[in-house]
Amino acid sequence: MEKTELKDEKSKEVEEEQVVNPWEVSAKDGGKIDYDKLIDKFGCQRLEESLVQRVQRLTNRAPHVFLRRGVFFAHRDFNDLLDSYEKGEKFYLYTGRGPSSEALHLGHLIPFMFTKYLQDAFKVPLVIQLTDDEKCMWKNLSVEESQRLARENAKDIIACGFDISKTFIFSDFDYVGGAFYKNMIKIAKCVTYNKVVGIFGFTGEDHIGKVSFPPVQAAPSFPSSFPHLFGSDNIRCLIPCAIDQDPYFRMTRDVAPRIGYHKPALIESSFFPALQGENGKMSASDPNSAIYVTDSAKEIKNKINRYAFSGGQDSIELHRKYGANLEVDIPFKYLSFFLDDDAELEHIREEYGSGRMLTGEIKKKLVDVLTDIVERHRRARAAVTDEMVDAFMGVRPLPNMFN
Amino acid sequence: MEKTELKDEKSKEVEEEQVVNPWEVSAKDGGKIDYDKLIDKFGCQRLEESLVQRVQRLTNRAPHVFLRRGVFFAHRDFNDLLDSYEKGEKFYLYTGRGPSSEALHLGHLIPFMFTKYLQDAFKVPLVIQLTDDEKCMWKNLSVEESQRLARENAKDIIACGFDISKTFIFSDFDYVGGAFYKNMIKIAKCVTYNKVVGIFGFTGEDHIGKVSFPPVQAAPSFPSSFPHLFGSDNIRCLIPCAIDQDPYFRMTRDVAPRIGYHKPALIESSFFPALQGENGKMSASDPNSAIYVTDSAKEIKNKINRYAFSGGQDSIELHRKYGANLEVDIPFKYLSFFLDDDAELEHIREEYGSGRMLTGEIKKKLVDVLTDIVERHRRARAAVTDEMVDAFMGVRPLPNMFN
Repeated sequence: MEKTELKDEKSKEVEEEQVVNPWEVSAKDGGKIDYDKLIDKFGCQRLEESLVQRVQRLTNRAPHVFLRRGVFFAHRDFNDLLDSYEKGEKFYLYTGRGPSSEALHLGHLIPFMFTKYLQDAFKVPLVIQLTDDEKCMWKNLSVEESQRLARENAKDIIACGFDISKTFIFSDFDYVGGAFYKNMIKIAKCVTYNKVVGIFGFTGEDHIGKVSFPPVQAAPSFPSSFPHLFGSDNIRCLIPCAIDQDPYFRMTRDVAPRIGYHKPALIESSFFPALQGENGKMSASDPNSAIYVTDSAKEIKNKINRYAFSGGQDSIELHRKYGANLEVDIPFKYLSFFLDDDAELEHIREEYGSGRMLTGEIKKKLVDVLTDIVERHRRARAAVTDEMVDAFMGVRPLPNMFN
Repeated sequence: MEKTELKDEKSKEVEEEQVVNPWEVSAKDGGKIDYDKLIDKFGCQRLEESLVQRVQRLTNRAPHVFLRRGVFFAHRDFNDLLDSYEKGEKFYLYTGRGPSSEALHLGHLIPFMFTKYLQDAFKVPLVIQLTDDEKCMWKNLSVEESQRLARENAKDIIACGFDISKTFIFSDFDYVGGAFYKNMIKIAKCVTYNKVVGIFGFTGEDHIGKVSFPPVQAAPSFPSSFPHLFGSDNIRCLIPCAIDQDPYFRMTRDVAPRIGYHKPALIESSFFPALQGENGKMSASDPNSAIYVTDSAKEIKNKINRYAFSGGQDSIELHRKYGANLEVDIPFKYLSFFLDDDAELEHIREEYGSGRMLTGEIKKKLVDVLTDIVERHRRARAAVTDEMVDAFMGVRPLPNMFN
């Protein structure tokens, strides 16, 4: 996700504050993102513990670590969606990716890992949009290169374990048209230029492709964009995404009732921090800021040992005395995303926080956990064939998508 | 073609002057459109007599009455296109219609009659775009109604006699996608918002569908939008259209070389005047301003006798003395469009202009000519079946399109 070249008045106003939009995430004065402020500003709701428990009851399984630990921390109408689900109404999941680079880092996998859990737990179909058109325009990639990256990224996505009998992956360049294009036009009719400027901060020197794009990201929120899956069933949609995508779906939710659809519900995550510290998302332009799913065990070890920002004290003596500052410690933060064992994490919190565990020890634990995840992902991705990509991307009915 | 609700600074500047854009045509102070000024303002070229003669030589047939009489009076690069045609290079024709109403009037038929002549004379393929998406947005029609009108209009277009082995008719709602969408994105990347505001006069309160539309009308100018017809052949395109469509293709020609295509050539017509006089185009909102292809013989007779603005004098005595003012006489103007016989038109010009022929007589001649055209169109349209519409709109190769 990249910066807009030009900012509008609104984003200038908040320049000294934090900026979070689909192309830019930066905290105030290089500090941490203030997620409470973000919830207030965006007008979404905090995902309370009671809602996590409700998910557990409804799905009869432990909530995903990303729910238990508050990685997914905000929502829109998720409660309403669960009300209708409890009454036996169907819904589908929609998530996506802008294919701008070959190699994904761990932050990229978070929405997909979580979406796979939602698909399994609720037994619902899923559509995954690859916005190759967006990246062609924003990153100035050729059409062909964007489509190539879309297919490469699709392999990483498939490697997360999605159920082919419930999942449709599509590239915009391939799929826009027909029912999908009709929804794009219906959406576009409801949104003025001034409105998108207010939401996304486009300027007059931005090209019209950017102005045209928001309806493309909005359209999958409506089931009629997928007649081969949903026919004319007006079922609800739940969108798991990082909170920087909220502007698109604020616009979508505004439009939905005007064109006869349910507002999509959202469940929104915080950002996975850079190795260097928690002041935004990881940056594709600095390979040492992130662990990539293509990194070798040696690279993972080196990156964590050299770059992972530590909350440990400067000397062993001081560390034993004061303990680590867990608020800023990246190894602990990363473990809280990826170490599934609650008891073990609690143990580390106590030992490391009190100074009994040293930085080298927690880093070693993190190296083990991430190496295992990356290794498993690499094996799973190597098993994804071009035929499997074609199969996931085939425009086809999914007769067992709710089973 | 309808008015924009809001005008930009530029169109305000020329408010007291004439306004010609895809949604508004109005002459200065209710007078006639000044086509010379329009050519200067748009920067296109006058279609000189020598070019008409060149067409005659190249095609071995009499030029169409619309060429001989200067109905098509302006062009862009038509000469260059003929240069390449003479060298044996191929080109294709592209024209279109915005399906906003059921019944077409004679003015709507002019580009199609002329395009049929070009297809026959040059033996070239033709694509016809039905911009149902545009009309859905500008006229606030439902998607379904726009598509219904597109099919109804397709019947009138087919009734003009196009060769099914050389003609592909498409609805945007059906056809946008794939190669066509890729070209839309390539075009959109090259055009800033400020640019479309300058060309089309959109405002911030216009919806983004309008801002997104110009690339849709531009894309058929490039052969790769039709892979089933042209594969990867980068052949030239000639666009016959009324001159109010020039802004779209000025934008298209600006973009073309930047994305590796030839600039489309244009051949542009003046407007068919309203029955009430020559100060713009006919208006769909006033049924008495136009002859519709659905009008009965009796309606045609009534409309011409009651509404056709006459250049004849107020009394027979004055008429015999001064003759008719042919400059403002609508029956004479209409005959110059639709009476194919040059000698007969010349005879009428002399007799009526000198006052020997009376208004009633020229009106009777016009009633006969138009009744005949409308009758023939009605019969041809009645013979157009839904199967024929499907056949013309089928996405299919046209192996004999240059024969």
